[in-house]
Amino acid sequence: MFNNASVQPATTGKGHLYGISTGPGDPELLTLKAVRLLENCPVVAYFCKRSGRGRARTSCEAHISPQHEELPMVYPVTNEIPHDSREYRQQIEDFFEESAQAVARHLDAGRSVAVLNEGDAFFYGSFMHIFLRLKDRYESTVVPGVGAMMAGGALLPHPLMMRDDQLRVIPGTMGEKALRASIDPERATVIMKVGTNLPLLRGIASDMGILERAWYVEKASMPEEQVMPLAEAPEGKAPYFSMILIPGPGVRV
Amino acid sequence: MFNNASVQPATTGKGHLYGISTGPGDPELLTLKAVRLLENCPVVAYFCKRSGRGRARTSCEAHISPQHEELPMVYPVTNEIPHDSREYRQQIEDFFEESAQAVARHLDAGRSVAVLNEGDAFFYGSFMHIFLRLKDRYESTVVPGVGAMMAGGALLPHPLMMRDDQLRVIPGTMGEKALRASIDPERATVIMKVGTNLPLLRGIASDMGILERAWYVEKASMPEEQVMPLAEAPEGKAPYFSMILIPGPGVRV
Ligand SMILES: C[S@@+](CC[C@H](N)C(=O)[O-])C[C@H]1O[C@@H](n2cnc3c(N)ncnc32)[C@H](O)[C@@H]1O
Ligand SMILES: C[S@@+](CC[C@H](N)C(=O)[O-])C[C@H]1O[C@@H](n2cnc3c(N)ncnc32)[C@H](O)[C@@H]1O
Repeated sequence: MFNNASVQPATTGKGHLYGISTGPGDPELLTLKAVRLLENCPVVAYFCKRSGRGRARTSCEAHISPQHEELPMVYPVTNEIPHDSREYRQQIEDFFEESAQAVARHLDAGRSVAVLNEGDAFFYGSFMHIFLRLKDRYESTVVPGVGAMMAGGALLPHPLMMRDDQLRVIPGTMGEKALRASIDPERATVIMKVGTNLPLLRGIASDMGILERAWYVEKASMPEEQVMPLAEAPEGKAPYFSMILIPGPGVRV
Repeated sequence: MFNNASVQPATTGKGHLYGISTGPGDPELLTLKAVRLLENCPVVAYFCKRSGRGRARTSCEAHISPQHEELPMVYPVTNEIPHDSREYRQQIEDFFEESAQAVARHLDAGRSVAVLNEGDAFFYGSFMHIFLRLKDRYESTVVPGVGAMMAGGALLPHPLMMRDDQLRVIPGTMGEKALRASIDPERATVIMKVGTNLPLLRGIASDMGILERAWYVEKASMPEEQVMPLAEAPEGKAPYFSMILIPGPGVRV
């Protein structure tokens, strides 16, 4: 039974849009709030590939029942087209637009929708693609969650930053020039979206003399979790769920 | 009844040290993992002032029972001494040392200890002061959590960063020169530890032409929560639980 009252605004008769952060992978790293809203929302939507339901959905397995209506938003197969082409951008824009419309149909019918997100919903999260298209038409709530960065940091033998340390979070996809300009040995740094950029990032870290204190973390909080000095990371590309963490100067002991 | 088996290493007979992230204030933003470990640890330790038990402890109220042994670690009263003096540093070092020893006594007696933290335990968290002193002598686990930054970001009308945006996290306590050097209008920025620095930070944002798109967030996820453009923030100093969020260029629409 869905307790719709607790997840729907009485005022509009429309459903409420929830951006639910599902954490870094371990299903126990969902918040109590995410669980409550998930259990009470009649519709659960999530981005995924054709090959599977995706990590956000997997982390929520225990809280999704046959009474839920599931709305998988399946990324179009796009390996044929280069990801920086206009064609690809158009395809992906169309896909986000259609996904937002599918969510909106439920909201219009008075059904609240929980859109699941890996990590934190607003921290490079995919929820933004739905949110930005629907926020002016529906009431919405973003439920913050445990970011991958926090899960990765928890695995280090010391905090990522201390005292007056500053932190930089950088996408590893920026290209070599921008990466070299953005990494500063005097700042704590987290590099997300490592993937195929692992060899490049390792080379840059080595050039900058920070290879020895950089950490490589793969699938933090998942059963296959790996943590090691970046210098010891496997050759070749990294899996999608990997990042590099470089402690700040306040931490170096 | 404590299920000690689930929170103690069978190997050493000593207790296990847990750094528990308790999230940004809303008790529902605890993770399932934090709740389980908290309920199973016989000892719950937390930093606090003489005037109260502190926010981390308050967020956990529902999960602490009379069977728990509580270990409040009360900050010494230090308002008489300037915080940048050698005397203050010494006092606070002594205090952390004594606190770590108090935790260690429980661990030696075979009792696992949950040390509570505001937000995420390793994200400028106080747990580091215990962790760094005890990690080589005891088995320990850091349970990541929802950082204040995520709770603040969730309140904005758009994500904090998108696509290839970079993020900088900066402590507002760095002093004017370092602040001016660290804030870059081309980067998404979160300024923590705002407090008495609010007027200074507002002035800097104004000089840099980013006042109009900076957000001020107070007590995110708590009943007294406030969100407003920085330009409209109250004059004078801000409360301890406040921060400034400046969206990245990918978000500006
Ligand atoms: C598009 S971003 C989404 C981040 C997410 N919203 C968050 O708050 O964690 C995806 C990137 O997050 C990082 N990531 C997510 N989960 C991870 C995990 N469990 N372990 C390591 N890295 C992870 C990887 O760098 C990955 O490429
Ligand atoms: C010493 S730091 C600890 C941060 C914490 N470990 C975390 O992950 O959120 C304290 C600063 O966090 C920010 N903060 C913590 N909780 C907050 C909240 N609920 N709303 C706004 N700011 C908060 C404030 O800037 C405060 O000065």
